[in-house]
Amino acid sequence: MYEEILYEVEGPVATLTLNRPDRLNALTDRMMAELRHALAEAEADERVVGIILTGAGRGFSAGMDADALQAGANQRGMERTRLPKELEASPGDPSMGEDFQVTFGYLLSIRKPLLAAVNGACAGLGLCIASLCDLRFASDTAVFRTAFAQRGLIAEHGASWILPRILGPSRALDLLWHPRKVSAEEAREMGLANRVVPADRLLAEARSYLEEIAAACSPTSLMIMKQQVYRALMQPLGEAMSEANQLMAESLRRPDFKEGVASFVERRAPDFPRLAR
Amino acid sequence: MYEEILYEVEGPVATLTLNRPDRLNALTDRMMAELRHALAEAEADERVVGIILTGAGRGFSAGMDADALQAGANQRGMERTRLPKELEASPGDPSMGEDFQVTFGYLLSIRKPLLAAVNGACAGLGLCIASLCDLRFASDTAVFRTAFAQRGLIAEHGASWILPRILGPSRALDLLWHPRKVSAEEAREMGLANRVVPADRLLAEARSYLEEIAAACSPTSLMIMKQQVYRALMQPLGEAMSEANQLMAESLRRPDFKEGVASFVERRAPDFPRLAR
Amino acid sequence: MYEEILYEVEGPVATLTLNRPDRLNALTDRMMAELRHALAEAEADERVVGIILTGAGRGFSAGMDADALQAGANQRGMERTRLPKELEASPGDPSMGEDFQVTFGYLLSIRKPLLAAVNGACAGLGLCIASLCDLRFASDTAVFRTAFAQRGLIAEHGASWILPRILGPSRALDLLWHPRKVSAEEAREMGLANRVVPADRLLAEARSYLEEIAAACSPTSLMIMKQQVYRALMQPLGEAMSEANQLMAESLRRPDFKEGVASFVERRAPDFPRLAR
Repeated sequence: MYEEILYEVEGPVATLTLNRPDRLNALTDRMMAELRHALAEAEADERVVGIILTGAGRGFSAGMDADALQAGANQRGMERTRLPKELEASPGDPSMGEDFQVTFGYLLSIRKPLLAAVNGACAGLGLCIASLCDLRFASDTAVFRTAFAQRGLIAEHGASWILPRILGPSRALDLLWHPRKVSAEEAREMGLANRVVPADRLLAEARSYLEEIAAACSPTSLMIMKQQVYRALMQPLGEAMSEANQLMAESLRRPDFKEGVASFVERRAPDFPRLAR
Repeated sequence: MYEEILYEVEGPVATLTLNRPDRLNALTDRMMAELRHALAEAEADERVVGIILTGAGRGFSAGMDADALQAGANQRGMERTRLPKELEASPGDPSMGEDFQVTFGYLLSIRKPLLAAVNGACAGLGLCIASLCDLRFASDTAVFRTAFAQRGLIAEHGASWILPRILGPSRALDLLWHPRKVSAEEAREMGLANRVVPADRLLAEARSYLEEIAAACSPTSLMIMKQQVYRALMQPLGEAMSEANQLMAESLRRPDFKEGVASFVERRAPDFPRLAR
Repeated sequence: MYEEILYEVEGPVATLTLNRPDRLNALTDRMMAELRHALAEAEADERVVGIILTGAGRGFSAGMDADALQAGANQRGMERTRLPKELEASPGDPSMGEDFQVTFGYLLSIRKPLLAAVNGACAGLGLCIASLCDLRFASDTAVFRTAFAQRGLIAEHGASWILPRILGPSRALDLLWHPRKVSAEEAREMGLANRVVPADRLLAEARSYLEEIAAACSPTSLMIMKQQVYRALMQPLGEAMSEANQLMAESLRRPDFKEGVASFVERRAPDFPRLAR
């Protein structure tokens, strides 16, 4: 069904590959719809504990496809071309609230860890999407660039909100303003890349990271903690504390807690139920 | 009076030591009550300018005691066992508002600098408490781990609120999700540890740091700036600026300002009044 | 007209130099008024794309002038001496709202990138002002110190709000509390300095950085993204996303977008309209 992405599940890891390598994986309306759909699939698939987002060929994504952008310019606001019905999907957890319903905000509400494996050029909307993934592992050949100001554009799709929270406002502005290509190593120093990995090891490292999480952790805990962290960015302390107390009380009554303690005491791997929908 | 902690004041520094070394200083209800009580003592003691929190033996704290956790599971929510009346205490400044009244939020409202000297394993609730200290100095033998997801639990007691503000959301999720033990050096790179110190120098360095502050700074200024910083995390800019203007005007009328200027002009150590209650 | 600053425009860069080198550029009411006025000038001057703020002589700024501070202490609150009418000015974009109208908050609303070139000692109010610049390049001879607590003062003029957002709360408290002089290199590790540059290259590097931005970027985009970033620090995600969608739609209809795409396709330097008032 997918034409512009690849989607594969192996063990506890779903890998989603942006797949227009001849266009440096520039994002089209269709590709974005396929991405949404595949993320909903990965959420619903109980085999899947964590998700990798990467790009085919030598880049991650060069950003929005020029044709799509132009088409956008000819329409009212951000409306997109009509998409095939079979690609309709509702990824993410609606209980996280409206904040996570506007365009790419849904990425922060995906119920499973989402790791961007940045394998090369990561620019414009591609950088926005990578920034809305929970973590970023970068190939040592990766380069980052927003490029918005060079096209007369603005900080799209949440970049103005998430970048200052990951990097602080000064580094965010540096990244949004200056036209240089930021290397993987500089991205790591800035806090944009969580790890830098040799290009030929990138996918293996990303996969290992998620497999280690899957082997040790309760998928329900992973989901709840992701929701806590992103919601807490908008909460006062007391509200986040009270919510944590409530969630803690609930977690103490959940079978996962029993299994977590039992596996620890018995010095064996835990067997937590997977998440489906 | 204390059974599970040690409490000592030397010069301007109070040192609070979690003291169940045979259990890696796992936190019990009693230990948490003693911690609250001793922090209230340190606040009320005018000799004390800054406070060190550390652990006895080879760890800082392995987190909540398994028995206490289990007991918690058998009760409604987070209610705790009844504690001796003499341990009742009200640490922290109630004028900071309700946000700082929910469970461990009070740590951020302690009127004096609170420095965690992380001398070894720092996990679970132990990591939450260390994160709610103002600064963390880590021994080079320290290791950090949340371990919540491995027990089927969630981001307890403010971890979901304070970690993204110290580390940003991506590193916070890495720490909350991945089961590895984070070394002192990685903790420093992440921003979790402010300094890494050889194990045998940890307490001396922590003490020196607070003594240098005590020798140079107005305890009232230290208190107000701590309150400003944590409150400002929840304030819009204009409100923080207006509040700062008000606080600045008040500080210009306080004897500490006269003494601060006089000691500077006279090239001598300042003699600021200490804080008591 | 200016007595305590220098103001110069060369190419797309305005350079504003605090100019009381015999007093380490300590800030007077007049100097602060001249700073406001010159920033309004730089905003209104269509030649100017970016602004450097630096200090004459061996320091950036030692903070508020002792006499000015004392005068402030004798007045009600933060009111200042009456200033000459010709220095009245309204820098910054009032459409950013009241949050950016309180005292030095206006710095965050300046319509053009504002880069502090910290050439030496940067203390007290000098550090506040540098922190409210968008980026900080530090000479390798720069030293940073808040010094508030040593004078019995508090976190002035937005320091309590901006420092935790640039550095996180723990590093902010370290900087606000501890009396040491923080070196340029430590400032870079903390995230306070974006770059460290040999002293004799500081202004050239700061200028190059802004020239590179000016050669490649739409001044309107730069302005909007700055406003997005600082506003987003106070916005929930959904609001920031919706606003970005609106701004994106507007930017797609602006000539800058056409020029951005055309120059890219034609592999030539873009020719964007400059900002005036």
